[in-house]
Amino acid sequence: MPQFDNVSVVKKANVYFDGKCVSHTVVLADGVKKSVGVVLPAKLTFNTGVPETMETVAGSVRYRIKGDTAWKTARAGESFSVPGNSSFDIEVTEEPYHYVCHFG
Amino acid sequence: MPQFDNVSVVKKANVYFDGKCVSHTVVLADGVKKSVGVVLPAKLTFNTGVPETMETVAGSVRYRIKGDTAWKTARAGESFSVPGNSSFDIEVTEEPYHYVCHFG
Repeated sequence: MPQFDNVSVVKKANVYFDGKCVSHTVVLADGVKKSVGVVLPAKLTFNTGVPETMETVAGSVRYRIKGDTAWKTARAGESFSVPGNSSFDIEVTEEPYHYVCHFG
Repeated sequence: MPQFDNVSVVKKANVYFDGKCVSHTVVLADGVKKSVGVVLPAKLTFNTGVPETMETVAGSVRYRIKGDTAWKTARAGESFSVPGNSSFDIEVTEEPYHYVCHFG
């Protein structure tokens, strides 16, 4: 599904890491909050509050969840989940990584 | 109004100028298309196909429409309009410029 339907979208973006990550917050009809975003080529560490599932929309990402030693890859259509109160490293090379972040 | 309600949002972002400008496409219930985006500090030139109105959501922007000699400023809540098949220069300094682009 290339788009969310019947949602609200916050006009002001969320800008992280000097713009290496930009997202917009989306609220579904049932009140569930998600974000649609993009990460430009960079190596970054994100902290989680609640658990997060990162779904790759386009491009690909290398990721390593806190406590893991191995880096893995999530390509378009693939997802990975991160526990709450944790962190994960991501590495994006060449092409932007487009994602949907699911919370909780 | 800080958000659009009852809209569709395309999950994949539009990435321009190596990520200096990132936007997401929004489609209103009546089929009208808009985009919500952010420009990081940079000096850029955008071309228009259809006429565009750029509404500042947060931050501010210096702009100059093709054929004008003067630069002007659009702060939060202010807008400027650009004819179709034209172009405009923008300059963003320090803080990201958050905008809604209205087409037609």
